[in-house]
Amino acid sequence: MSIHSAVDIITTKRDGGVLSDEAIEWMLNSYVAGTVADEQVSALLMAIFFQGLSARELKRWTDVMIASGERLDLSRLSRPTVDKHSTGGVGDKISLILAPLVAACGAAVPQLSGRGLGHTGGTLDKLESIPGWRATLSNEEAIEQLESVGAVICAAGAGLAPVDRKLYALRDVTGTVESIPLISSSIMSKKIAEGTQALVLDVKVGRGAFIKTLERARELATTMVGLGHSHGVATVAQLTAMNQPLGIAVGNALEVSESVDVLRGAGPEDVRELTLSLARTMLELVGIDVDPATKLDDGTAYEVYCRMIEAQGGDPTAILPIARHHHVVSAPHDGIIQSVDALGVGVAAWRLGAGRARKEDPVSAGAGVKCLVREGDYVVAHQPLFELYADDEEHLQRGMATIENTVTLGDQAAPAEAILIERISI
Amino acid sequence: MSIHSAVDIITTKRDGGVLSDEAIEWMLNSYVAGTVADEQVSALLMAIFFQGLSARELKRWTDVMIASGERLDLSRLSRPTVDKHSTGGVGDKISLILAPLVAACGAAVPQLSGRGLGHTGGTLDKLESIPGWRATLSNEEAIEQLESVGAVICAAGAGLAPVDRKLYALRDVTGTVESIPLISSSIMSKKIAEGTQALVLDVKVGRGAFIKTLERARELATTMVGLGHSHGVATVAQLTAMNQPLGIAVGNALEVSESVDVLRGAGPEDVRELTLSLARTMLELVGIDVDPATKLDDGTAYEVYCRMIEAQGGDPTAILPIARHHHVVSAPHDGIIQSVDALGVGVAAWRLGAGRARKEDPVSAGAGVKCLVREGDYVVAHQPLFELYADDEEHLQRGMATIENTVTLGDQAAPAEAILIERISI
Repeated sequence: MSIHSAVDIITTKRDGGVLSDEAIEWMLNSYVAGTVADEQVSALLMAIFFQGLSARELKRWTDVMIASGERLDLSRLSRPTVDKHSTGGVGDKISLILAPLVAACGAAVPQLSGRGLGHTGGTLDKLESIPGWRATLSNEEAIEQLESVGAVICAAGAGLAPVDRKLYALRDVTGTVESIPLISSSIMSKKIAEGTQALVLDVKVGRGAFIKTLERARELATTMVGLGHSHGVATVAQLTAMNQPLGIAVGNALEVSESVDVLRGAGPEDVRELTLSLARTMLELVGIDVDPATKLDDGTAYEVYCRMIEAQGGDPTAILPIARHHHVVSAPHDGIIQSVDALGVGVAAWRLGAGRARKEDPVSAGAGVKCLVREGDYVVAHQPLFELYADDEEHLQRGMATIENTVTLGDQAAPAEAILIERISI
Repeated sequence: MSIHSAVDIITTKRDGGVLSDEAIEWMLNSYVAGTVADEQVSALLMAIFFQGLSARELKRWTDVMIASGERLDLSRLSRPTVDKHSTGGVGDKISLILAPLVAACGAAVPQLSGRGLGHTGGTLDKLESIPGWRATLSNEEAIEQLESVGAVICAAGAGLAPVDRKLYALRDVTGTVESIPLISSSIMSKKIAEGTQALVLDVKVGRGAFIKTLERARELATTMVGLGHSHGVATVAQLTAMNQPLGIAVGNALEVSESVDVLRGAGPEDVRELTLSLARTMLELVGIDVDPATKLDDGTAYEVYCRMIEAQGGDPTAILPIARHHHVVSAPHDGIIQSVDALGVGVAAWRLGAGRARKEDPVSAGAGVKCLVREGDYVVAHQPLFELYADDEEHLQRGMATIENTVTLGDQAAPAEAILIERISI
């Protein structure tokens, strides 16, 4: 027995007290060592859900998570490093465009990512629809590619903040996911361990995001920005709207195609706008004075993209998989699109086969949804609203059942919603 | 997978929602079956700590705990049945006197008890200091003794509300003991399963009790009284003071001796007073109009006690063990006893060897403390305050170190505190 007892630590937090640095260190390290049990940590996590963590507690908690694994050293790279993290949205393919774009402007973008779960797809799943592309690189390979190409999107190694995997798996089954300090430490521990100098957070808020209110989005953003700064990472957050899907494509290969469109200077306006906004903030943080729009329009961002895909074994010019079964959902009558429910579209894409319910599940490369309309659009009867794609009839039927009622048609003018809501920095 | 997911149930309670009857049933039964994990139940218990349980949820929770095991049928006994439960106090030997006393008045007292843990001793540990006495009876033996003697104090069989053992062990290591609905369901599930018609609860409040404030004691008492009535058990609670120890003796054999004194019409006044008060309430609940004081004074309660001990193999006239090492703590100067800290005395007795830290630990029969003074007493310098007893010098030293500072001496008159605070019934 140590001077710290797990029960004392749990009841201290439960009763609104403050945990000492030593108590946090002892608890998390004992959990990793297996001497503090899952049921004790889940009780503590639930107490944290109710009582929160102070800035000092959270910093220490995150420190211990980082110290549980390795920390990459990117300081020998010839370029400044800057990364982006999104809290997840429907149709959010921004990373695929942003990483090569910011690299084309002169920074190095070390995008070490996780897998998608639930209704928002994962960046790695999207890229894996490109024939030959592989997500897994060693740390050395990732650093080498950062130097040679300037951008890498790969699976975060198991060595970064390994206690986060254990904690996340526990939170997932114990109803303790939705806690701002726990979300913040989970995201930031991995980004800090990754070694980036600067970080832009895209905090999604709205019906299709896991954060529904501006107030909570601000709280999460402020917490993560504070945590980044306290660990020496220049961090800025942008709150962005996630009520309707981002762009047209929702699904793995569908989103890769749309990303290539944007990288070639075309593509949906909202995707281009958000990408450029995030790119400008990233470049600002590392002091690079280049207008990223020029790099989309002159083809250099697309060139970096091709080199980034090739460096990981992929063929950027290959024909992407398309799901064989499809269905078009049309407008029942004339009207103005009042809303497109991003969550409904995300769930439909997931049921069509584009997402997974469990870590072990495979995803379909070709399945997904194309959203052909946006809020405020005027449509006439029989005009296509969605195209659904699935690998088999069963998945197609499931997606069709879900997509109903995701669009509301009315006669009110619906002004286009701004994507950028606000910026949070220190 | 069932329609009920453990995570949905946890998050519903976490967010202040109400659990359906089916959800509670599914969760507890799945826990017993091993398909819901400890870490999920501990997260739910912590959520209940913060959000509570409604009367309806608590009734269902308790129902499922009762239904997890057997329920004794005492309806064929020729006498009405009435039991008492105390939430635990220092020097609380009331059960040893009360059970035979109430039996002597014509009721049957089925006192199925648990083991003591921590600073308050257990009734079974006390009785086990009597040579030959055994705590374990089969249900049939217990019922037979209830009919023939009228009183039985024995170990509650593993068959009564077995999920409570599992839940209690989990609460103990996860900081979720101190929750009124969880305490109430733990106590009442066993008492209801025991089959008693009526029940008196002795809810201790004060420095030496686990409930420190009158407000919380009232809340606990009201919750348990409601739970008893909703299960057809006529239940009344008495809130009683537990700031200083009850009586003189604190320790196993020491408390048996003191109980025998009271059973023979003598003994400390506070012990006699509390016993008679509880006895009167118990008799009132089963409609027996006998003054229990007469049964202490005429020796019939003691006779029933002897038969109760003999029925379980004990020799009520045997010499009880006395610990060989002892030490007297004396008053440093003249003064009035301002307070005697029951918690401090309880911990001292525990460290002297009278209590256990873990279920597996043995207890010393002869160790303990005699508290020779009470609040408001005038003492002169060198007058004995405490006698400490231990089986070896090491335990004696530990007890001596603890007993210091449990008495405060001053010059203020300290009025004697009333034991009975209030009565709570429906």
